[in-house]
Amino acid sequence: MTNLFDSGVINDMPQRYRANFINSLSGYKSANLIGTCDANRHTNLAIVTSVFHVGANPPLMGMIMRPHTVTRDTLGNIKEQGYYTINAVPVSMYMQAHQTSARYNPEQSEFDQCGFTPCWQEGFAAPFVKESPMRVGLRVEDTQRIDANQTELVIGRIEQVWLDSNVIEDDGTVDISQLSLACVSGLDTYHKANPLAKMAYAKPDKAPSQIKLFNTDQ
Amino acid sequence: MTNLFDSGVINDMPQRYRANFINSLSGYKSANLIGTCDANRHTNLAIVTSVFHVGANPPLMGMIMRPHTVTRDTLGNIKEQGYYTINAVPVSMYMQAHQTSARYNPEQSEFDQCGFTPCWQEGFAAPFVKESPMRVGLRVEDTQRIDANQTELVIGRIEQVWLDSNVIEDDGTVDISQLSLACVSGLDTYHKANPLAKMAYAKPDKAPSQIKLFNTDQ
Repeated sequence: MTNLFDSGVINDMPQRYRANFINSLSGYKSANLIGTCDANRHTNLAIVTSVFHVGANPPLMGMIMRPHTVTRDTLGNIKEQGYYTINAVPVSMYMQAHQTSARYNPEQSEFDQCGFTPCWQEGFAAPFVKESPMRVGLRVEDTQRIDANQTELVIGRIEQVWLDSNVIEDDGTVDISQLSLACVSGLDTYHKANPLAKMAYAKPDKAPSQIKLFNTDQ
Repeated sequence: MTNLFDSGVINDMPQRYRANFINSLSGYKSANLIGTCDANRHTNLAIVTSVFHVGANPPLMGMIMRPHTVTRDTLGNIKEQGYYTINAVPVSMYMQAHQTSARYNPEQSEFDQCGFTPCWQEGFAAPFVKESPMRVGLRVEDTQRIDANQTELVIGRIEQVWLDSNVIEDDGTVDISQLSLACVSGLDTYHKANPLAKMAYAKPDKAPSQIKLFNTDQ
């Protein structure tokens, strides 16, 4: 059974209901903690679910930031310092990661309040999250205003990646299923993913084929 | 064990290896099929893993498109017609969905070639995917060039959503775990997600708490 929700119906939804509904439509999203600091190295940590791949050459990642919500300190730090980190959330810490979305006072660090450890690396001006098994350090490449709703697109260039080299496959793919990362749907629902298959490069004259089948009983 | 991959190491990676590596860093991504057509209603279907939430009011979704790759027909149709659909991929069809990434001739439709059924709805000028349990019809709101690598950000305003109203929770969240949707990591690895918990709205003075715990044995 499939029902239609048109723009009139969506418009009439109460604000919070609509936020939950529309946030669900983008499906599964990666759960990432954004690590930043101000000029005094006072740290900030915020969960963001809008991180996406922009390009591999140069290596770029993007994310959408809302200037008027709880992530405004994160955006301010990013613009001021020019550096930030993207740290994948392990399944074992999804509750602590979600807690970073609480509206703490600016002088409180979500690292301390939520149970994460800042990790400083030589030559990098933003804190990584020690508990994360896949940590990316980025320099701001560009910020663009999205005119349609006054959010900001932050584009970062990857400067450092920290992860166990044993989980990298021969072709360069990171087998993230070995890292037990969480994913998110909507605003508040956390999931664990189980791998099904790695597919061969698709060609018009060949049927789709699996290079590797994972054990789906796990 | 954690290893550092700095910008020098990343720069030195062979092109295909680097594409696989960098594409992995954004973690789990939703698998979506983008449905479009040209002025003669000749259809096109392309898997895209860069769909993200932009805002709920107005209801907006974004995605990154590469003008010089296999999705150039999709981008051309979107700009010409102003309408497109985002269709979540069910786990049962991940192989067919992956096959849409093959470089078919422009006169071939990936709907026919890969085994999907176009579904036209009154008042909407782009084809939906009948086999998808969550289908979103969008009107182009804006396109922006990403100067850092000449990709394009497409922002669409949600005009129609097709889904079973029984999977919508009281607060507006779509329980996508009931829809058996696939997610993707890297360029070619497909996963099934199992829900862990829905979290309460986070507050500074409250410990994180689960509103709903899912059966993790499924």
